[in-house]
Amino acid sequence: MSKIDLFCLRTMADILRQAKWKVTVFALRNEIVRVVPGKVEKYYGIAVDIGTTTIAGYLTDMQTGRAVATASKMNPQVKFGEDVMSRITYAMQNPDDGLEKMNKVIIEALNGVVNELVEEHNIESDDILETVLVCNTAMHHILLKLNPEHVGVAPFPTAMSPAVNYKARDMGIKISNSGSIHILANEAGFVGADNCGVLIMEEPYNSDEVTLIIDIGTNGELLLGSKKLGVVSCSVATGPALEGAQIKFGMRAAPGAIEKVEIDVETLEPRYKVIGKSDWHTHIEEVDTKGICGSGIIDVVAEMFRTGIIDKSGRFSKHAPTERLRKDPDNSMTEYVLAYKDETSIGKDVVITQGDVRAIQLAVGSIYAGAEIMMQKLKVKKLDKVVLAGAFGSHLSQFSCLLMGMFHDCDFSKILSVGNAAGDGARLVLVNKEKRDEADKMAREVEYIELTVFKEFERVFMEAMQFPHMTHKFPTIQHVLDEIPNWKQIAKEKKEAAKTAT
Amino acid sequence: MSKIDLFCLRTMADILRQAKWKVTVFALRNEIVRVVPGKVEKYYGIAVDIGTTTIAGYLTDMQTGRAVATASKMNPQVKFGEDVMSRITYAMQNPDDGLEKMNKVIIEALNGVVNELVEEHNIESDDILETVLVCNTAMHHILLKLNPEHVGVAPFPTAMSPAVNYKARDMGIKISNSGSIHILANEAGFVGADNCGVLIMEEPYNSDEVTLIIDIGTNGELLLGSKKLGVVSCSVATGPALEGAQIKFGMRAAPGAIEKVEIDVETLEPRYKVIGKSDWHTHIEEVDTKGICGSGIIDVVAEMFRTGIIDKSGRFSKHAPTERLRKDPDNSMTEYVLAYKDETSIGKDVVITQGDVRAIQLAVGSIYAGAEIMMQKLKVKKLDKVVLAGAFGSHLSQFSCLLMGMFHDCDFSKILSVGNAAGDGARLVLVNKEKRDEADKMAREVEYIELTVFKEFERVFMEAMQFPHMTHKFPTIQHVLDEIPNWKQIAKEKKEAAKTAT
Repeated sequence: MSKIDLFCLRTMADILRQAKWKVTVFALRNEIVRVVPGKVEKYYGIAVDIGTTTIAGYLTDMQTGRAVATASKMNPQVKFGEDVMSRITYAMQNPDDGLEKMNKVIIEALNGVVNELVEEHNIESDDILETVLVCNTAMHHILLKLNPEHVGVAPFPTAMSPAVNYKARDMGIKISNSGSIHILANEAGFVGADNCGVLIMEEPYNSDEVTLIIDIGTNGELLLGSKKLGVVSCSVATGPALEGAQIKFGMRAAPGAIEKVEIDVETLEPRYKVIGKSDWHTHIEEVDTKGICGSGIIDVVAEMFRTGIIDKSGRFSKHAPTERLRKDPDNSMTEYVLAYKDETSIGKDVVITQGDVRAIQLAVGSIYAGAEIMMQKLKVKKLDKVVLAGAFGSHLSQFSCLLMGMFHDCDFSKILSVGNAAGDGARLVLVNKEKRDEADKMAREVEYIELTVFKEFERVFMEAMQFPHMTHKFPTIQHVLDEIPNWKQIAKEKKEAAKTAT
Repeated sequence: MSKIDLFCLRTMADILRQAKWKVTVFALRNEIVRVVPGKVEKYYGIAVDIGTTTIAGYLTDMQTGRAVATASKMNPQVKFGEDVMSRITYAMQNPDDGLEKMNKVIIEALNGVVNELVEEHNIESDDILETVLVCNTAMHHILLKLNPEHVGVAPFPTAMSPAVNYKARDMGIKISNSGSIHILANEAGFVGADNCGVLIMEEPYNSDEVTLIIDIGTNGELLLGSKKLGVVSCSVATGPALEGAQIKFGMRAAPGAIEKVEIDVETLEPRYKVIGKSDWHTHIEEVDTKGICGSGIIDVVAEMFRTGIIDKSGRFSKHAPTERLRKDPDNSMTEYVLAYKDETSIGKDVVITQGDVRAIQLAVGSIYAGAEIMMQKLKVKKLDKVVLAGAFGSHLSQFSCLLMGMFHDCDFSKILSVGNAAGDGARLVLVNKEKRDEADKMAREVEYIELTVFKEFERVFMEAMQFPHMTHKFPTIQHVLDEIPNWKQIAKEKKEAAKTAT
């Protein structure tokens, strides 16, 4: 039986003769896909992480395994909805052409990424023999032009779980005509190929330590396990707050976004760092703040908690002695002024509202609750290691995460940020065929936990919403928790002291 | 790794749900290519024999293996040249779009055959999951859009020898979008997939008898061998004479063509049978002869030899006592009038010229010589069995073939006509996967003999041009040969007898 791609075969005989039978032959999975004259050692692949909001591509030198060019693009499907569910809804509400349209724009965007990469590295799209894609399950369906409807309804079944290999030409992706597209396995309905990438990068199944992996994007996907215990996964609905969306002055991690915050526990005055500026904020005229991104939001909420501006339950303290706490004149809700309008380029004060704090509580609480249900499932009391994955995760302050109670107590030295592990996983399977087999095998072995079927989930979630937790102990940061000023008590004592003094 | 065709996957999830998970799944080589609601037992394939001049398709019920509809079409590539070499030349002389154009018309013709078959049997083209094609090597290249240039130059290498499986959509063939095209292996440069079909139908490699298989088309392909000896193949350049082309009144086997001829040895008057008429010619007004097709030409030349109108070397006898032997007034060449213009619908006498006899001598002699070289190669002195394959072969008179010396002497009972064995082979591999593997294996095992490299070929060929052969004995028909009148001798004896009488 033939194992030469038809489009490759069409040029092969002539190339063989022109090159006097001295050629280099490239094969993918025993199928010859490229024949080029002479001895050619360089060949290329592309790994792409297709996020709900961002597409990141890595042109990879297949000989060295190194990314030689990178390109990223907004996911143009944003116009059909900010999040996965709204895009699934769009497809359902436009049965004639909704899926078709969303597929078209994502394929075009992918081809745009391919173009950018080949131009940057000065090669031809023909030189790209393979592309490995990771994405969530909804993106997966839209990419393959599969009806995503069922992925949006419990129990969220995917049309296709195992890894798939398809011809690039069948998907409309313009790498080599004979090239292949490999999409990693979906683990479960809401745990997609992107999490499979994280899984094989971090290999919790090979670790003696009990490891919690948190991949934070528009949704949160969690993995927990060890070599001995096996690995379980779940998906938690964090909402987009951790990415800066649905936060009053929230924005993406882009120049002008506040990304780090500290608040002075004495004066309750903040200082912050803005993306694009190398120093922490000291001179207002140089800052041009536009808003606040995910890591900044986590920081500011954690700092407000540490300094007693908000209490365990997230409520603003009436007694915190700072003018930055004020009522919004429009709705009389309390808010904290992080940056006065003179410091911004938007002509408005950048404030943190009660609603913003609630959004962060929900997001952080849901991650904690998901992890706790998984710990119960594996009968684990303590985490040996926490891995924060996701482009956003790499900028998170470990201290702020712990103070928020994003996960159970853990040594700081064992809380690691690994950046875009999903994309790294894609790059890994692109160059390593054994890893590809491992990915497919492990994706099947990971046990998916559907949180909503746990009766105790509501209670666990409610307890997790408190900072850092209603009942659980956090020895690592207990000394910090012990130092949180109780402004009500302080105010009362001051009052009494003043009374006594008079 | 996925083994669901992408286009099948796109509809699968919805079909599964609509059918409440009761579906029938069809797979080709472990890849799912079709999912249909409910229990469906019928499915279809098409076997197609693509000849240089004719395309014959057989719609096959894959459950029973029976052909349920047949369709045939002229190969529209005829407009690019009557024979294989002229089409290869066309491609070479039009490097920009010659191959593209020839590919386009053959694919369109194939789709026409598919359409005709599905309409005749009232199914959808979607119901056709697989097509098996057999053809010669030049057609093979044009079908796959491979440069046919090298197939036309010694040693006639094919770009692809083994059997190939390609997606119908990649070739532009409109059966099911997920369906496959299988093309049998090419045996050698001039021995194509069509001969591979003949090979597995006749299985000379399983026979105790030494079998010669002659597949007669625009070229002649020969197979010789037995279980013990193995099988060798060769290709002989018969020219198109045996198909009625390049014969003065030659035509295809169609209504109006003389297909059988007998000549009375006493009167030298012929009688003949015309296609479309049930009786042999007795009343001229009912015949409407238009010309003569391949089997008729073989017959008339054999009969002219048997009756002494031509001699062993093919020359017309000056002494044969018949008015039907005459000089063409235009060029003074001798010719035999087979049908006077009153018997024809073309307003002309249908004659057999010296050139026609020479063309037949060349064709028959080349087949004999090819077979003899193969016999030498296998050290075989005698044929146990002769199989005449090809649509044309099924109408040949065994007696005429032997008298012409188309092959070594053989018992009449062991000379078989099997019709379109190439097409039958295609139908067989369509329904029988083991046979498919056998075809690929045997195509590799058959040893191809390039006749032109044999120094003795010229001599062998020259000796074979004589009727039935310059030196070889033909015991089976020796009694007939002994009875051939020597008109020169008879004329001389008559003259002497007359002289004596006076």
